[in-house]
Amino acid sequence: MTTLEDPVTPPTGGSLMPTLSGDYYCSADVFATEQERIFEQMWFCAVRSADLPEPGAFRRVQVGRESVLVVRGRDGALNAFLNVCRHRGAMICTEESGTVKRHLKCPYHAWTYALDGKLFAAPNLGSLTDANGQRIDRVEYGLIKVALREWLGYAWVCLADDPPSFETDVVGSVTMRLGDPEAVERYGVSDLAVGRRIVYDVAANWKLIIENFMECYHCATIHPELTEVLPEFADGLAAQYFVGHGAQFGEQVQGFTIDGGAGVPSIPGITPEQDRRYYAITVRPNVFVNLVPDHVIIHRMYPMAADRTVVECDWLYVPEVVEQDMDLKRSVELFHRVNMQDFDACERTQPAMSSRGYRAGGVLVPSEHHIGEFHDWIVSRLT
Amino acid sequence: MTTLEDPVTPPTGGSLMPTLSGDYYCSADVFATEQERIFEQMWFCAVRSADLPEPGAFRRVQVGRESVLVVRGRDGALNAFLNVCRHRGAMICTEESGTVKRHLKCPYHAWTYALDGKLFAAPNLGSLTDANGQRIDRVEYGLIKVALREWLGYAWVCLADDPPSFETDVVGSVTMRLGDPEAVERYGVSDLAVGRRIVYDVAANWKLIIENFMECYHCATIHPELTEVLPEFADGLAAQYFVGHGAQFGEQVQGFTIDGGAGVPSIPGITPEQDRRYYAITVRPNVFVNLVPDHVIIHRMYPMAADRTVVECDWLYVPEVVEQDMDLKRSVELFHRVNMQDFDACERTQPAMSSRGYRAGGVLVPSEHHIGEFHDWIVSRLT
Amino acid sequence: MTTLEDPVTPPTGGSLMPTLSGDYYCSADVFATEQERIFEQMWFCAVRSADLPEPGAFRRVQVGRESVLVVRGRDGALNAFLNVCRHRGAMICTEESGTVKRHLKCPYHAWTYALDGKLFAAPNLGSLTDANGQRIDRVEYGLIKVALREWLGYAWVCLADDPPSFETDVVGSVTMRLGDPEAVERYGVSDLAVGRRIVYDVAANWKLIIENFMECYHCATIHPELTEVLPEFADGLAAQYFVGHGAQFGEQVQGFTIDGGAGVPSIPGITPEQDRRYYAITVRPNVFVNLVPDHVIIHRMYPMAADRTVVECDWLYVPEVVEQDMDLKRSVELFHRVNMQDFDACERTQPAMSSRGYRAGGVLVPSEHHIGEFHDWIVSRLT
Repeated sequence: MTTLEDPVTPPTGGSLMPTLSGDYYCSADVFATEQERIFEQMWFCAVRSADLPEPGAFRRVQVGRESVLVVRGRDGALNAFLNVCRHRGAMICTEESGTVKRHLKCPYHAWTYALDGKLFAAPNLGSLTDANGQRIDRVEYGLIKVALREWLGYAWVCLADDPPSFETDVVGSVTMRLGDPEAVERYGVSDLAVGRRIVYDVAANWKLIIENFMECYHCATIHPELTEVLPEFADGLAAQYFVGHGAQFGEQVQGFTIDGGAGVPSIPGITPEQDRRYYAITVRPNVFVNLVPDHVIIHRMYPMAADRTVVECDWLYVPEVVEQDMDLKRSVELFHRVNMQDFDACERTQPAMSSRGYRAGGVLVPSEHHIGEFHDWIVSRLT
Repeated sequence: MTTLEDPVTPPTGGSLMPTLSGDYYCSADVFATEQERIFEQMWFCAVRSADLPEPGAFRRVQVGRESVLVVRGRDGALNAFLNVCRHRGAMICTEESGTVKRHLKCPYHAWTYALDGKLFAAPNLGSLTDANGQRIDRVEYGLIKVALREWLGYAWVCLADDPPSFETDVVGSVTMRLGDPEAVERYGVSDLAVGRRIVYDVAANWKLIIENFMECYHCATIHPELTEVLPEFADGLAAQYFVGHGAQFGEQVQGFTIDGGAGVPSIPGITPEQDRRYYAITVRPNVFVNLVPDHVIIHRMYPMAADRTVVECDWLYVPEVVEQDMDLKRSVELFHRVNMQDFDACERTQPAMSSRGYRAGGVLVPSEHHIGEFHDWIVSRLT
Repeated sequence: MTTLEDPVTPPTGGSLMPTLSGDYYCSADVFATEQERIFEQMWFCAVRSADLPEPGAFRRVQVGRESVLVVRGRDGALNAFLNVCRHRGAMICTEESGTVKRHLKCPYHAWTYALDGKLFAAPNLGSLTDANGQRIDRVEYGLIKVALREWLGYAWVCLADDPPSFETDVVGSVTMRLGDPEAVERYGVSDLAVGRRIVYDVAANWKLIIENFMECYHCATIHPELTEVLPEFADGLAAQYFVGHGAQFGEQVQGFTIDGGAGVPSIPGITPEQDRRYYAITVRPNVFVNLVPDHVIIHRMYPMAADRTVVECDWLYVPEVVEQDMDLKRSVELFHRVNMQDFDACERTQPAMSSRGYRAGGVLVPSEHHIGEFHDWIVSRLT
């Protein structure tokens, strides 16, 4: 990542750099290794905390190759568990989401777990002993816990036995991008409300989606509406290229909407510097954060196969905006259209990844050079 | 298998035992080995004999990975063949079932086989010689035979070059369960008529379905109608746990029907001891037999993939009951509902078999301990 | 290939010969090797040249595992390229076919290529250098070229780095079959017009389709209409068995139509010897040519998987016949029905290829012995 005095002069000159080779994007073996060493080792943004409003509320999410249950406990805190009964392995919950009264009960043989995961009851449990003849330990035979942290209003989970530092990996990557630990806090993201959620099923490798989000060399070609609102994007330089830089709204633009018209009331805490600007952040491995004055857009990616990724996108607003049912259509439409344009480009790219014409990869132009660091990171995680 | 003086006192106390590990239920390699060493080596219950009423009647069935033709011959006996023309390999029959007049004729080049499999005719056959210059041997170039035995009104086939003893493996497993070789004979199963047949396509490994059938620890949780009719099932002990034991109907229960009302006239040959009782038998690898006073239910499983099994279930009654068109609905509905409840439980369990939470398997409670012997048997067949 | 004095006496006597073993037709590994060593090494008939009438017209075709673009250039000549942008690998064209005005433009980042494949423009291209600090070479970073030859009115492409001789492999195989290099030229195939095109999606290995086309032992069984028109086919001898032989129309037959009625005006250049005759030629790996007096039928096969092949079939007529909108229905119907009958037979054969009953293959009768040479050729290409 580069820091420049005048961040809006794009580094147009310079040399081409190589990309990853095509097999990184289509090999089932590479994908399995990524599941194991990236998605099942790193912090993974799983659930909007507010989607689980009361004790007993749960949501089932795919993390790497695992089905994970996120559940709000009696004490109001969230917990995450593998969605597997310790008896004979039935999934505890097959519904996407729901609310249980007091316990999680396996629907096969009625083994029943407290909301904190402890084994609470089972037919004849009192008379059972474990393989060593001891009474059944309620924790050892409880649901298997998964590490969980809350930040920006989301539950982040980590399947690693020894999770990496959340502060370094997650918070740190936002700070590094914005140049200031306070910057994201001013948007009060955890207090915002979901105004709209759209789920996209994209026939492309997850890394194509990340690379697309990281660069803006494609903006002039496929994002007419976005470059209208953010004219500097027409020069092809991504907002992510410079530390702390936010792309400035065009002079006639009133808000981050499909036609540049006024948006909804701004988020109260932001600074004048943050007003009329768009910031974009990638939190590896699966989150994009977009900050504009009156809303925040969060993408979460769920990689399903080497050539398929589900993307869940939340548009977050000040709660009053959502409660008063203000018109969010023009605001949502802008980035929804950007999403469609980007995912279409990724889907066009996926089939060529297996071509002999991409066996040695392609090239990065100078304004894409920061993607090279992402490629180095991928290679280092996989080896 | 345990023999107890008082068979209805369930062994509630005791220790937990380990199950098979999850990969046994989801690995394509394990499944391929099972096809090779279990389904293509053992006797496999393939067709209801009465489904092939006259000479020339045939039915095509999947046995392991093979398409097998069962055909009734001129002499009235059944034969089984691989469904492959000896010339260029076309399938002789692509229809599920049907009747040919005199011969099985390959629809590609008209190689024609007698109903006993011998090569009967082919264009220019008379002038052909084999690779050694000898006249074509009608048996050597006939359809490839598969071993076949009839019992309980079904054709059982075996793809092994040297089939195991039918008496030991099939008849013996029923005798061992019922404690008496005469017990099953009294139901005259081969003389019963199919009153109803339902085919289920289950998204679960075949072993999950067998294990489910073997134990009743789940009965109280998922089978309200069944435990109403057989109250001892509410205690979680499977009828299969004790040699010779049949679960007794509840006191108010008149018949094995969805509401416990009266069924149809009983099978004449059964003893007073067998009246008002339910017996369940597993015949490995693919058959379940359920005996009640007025009907017999036979399940045949066709494993299609590690995570998919087709189950064909026949409800058999005294022929007059079927001919007189008596109302079988309440009788069929009971076990159809049990099937749906069981297969739903199996489908809930399948996805967790690949979870790290089941990598080392789960546990068997004491009333499931006899499943451990099934697991040992699986391991011994595969190694 | 055999030359006989009296070509219509079929060699009915003789011995059986072995075929390839079943795994050649169902193994994914064999199929991948065939893609690599056959379809991506040999000349592959890809596009009817007339389908690309003007500069900028393109068609996208699958050649082996590659997506290939065939494009008509400014100079009127056809070129073929891998359909992969040299920048980040997006497919240049995702549509099946179309026409561009002046350039091929990648829809992702607007890298733009001339119709001859040279890199023409890209955002900031002028200021870019390659990895060695040199200006971007327009050819080196142009679309990757694929060898192309035109013959019989089709563009044939070859993915090999060093393509084999077109004259030997393609032209030579037609000459060898017809016995005379002039024979095919008299049909003026490149000047004919497409009267009808039908695409078939066949659930069978491509070699089953070739073998089927090569022999006529099946004709009496599955082609009643064809043997009516070509009575010698009822004897089971393929037109392809003898060099130069064309099957003669039946005495009452007026034309190569579904009912033997008159066809359309004949192709002017053919000789009296070629009149009232049907010639069939296989050009490996993917083309069948059928010649009759008033039209030419060309099949192109696109192997998609071990058990799936797409076949595109063109019926070609003298241009005036097509322009004057003469009734082609009865003419097209004959071979369309033959195709359906053949592909049905191939689809019946495919499932048995994985049976133990075909593990060692089947047999060829004497009138199929020339298929043995095809099998030898396959084995030699793969090893």
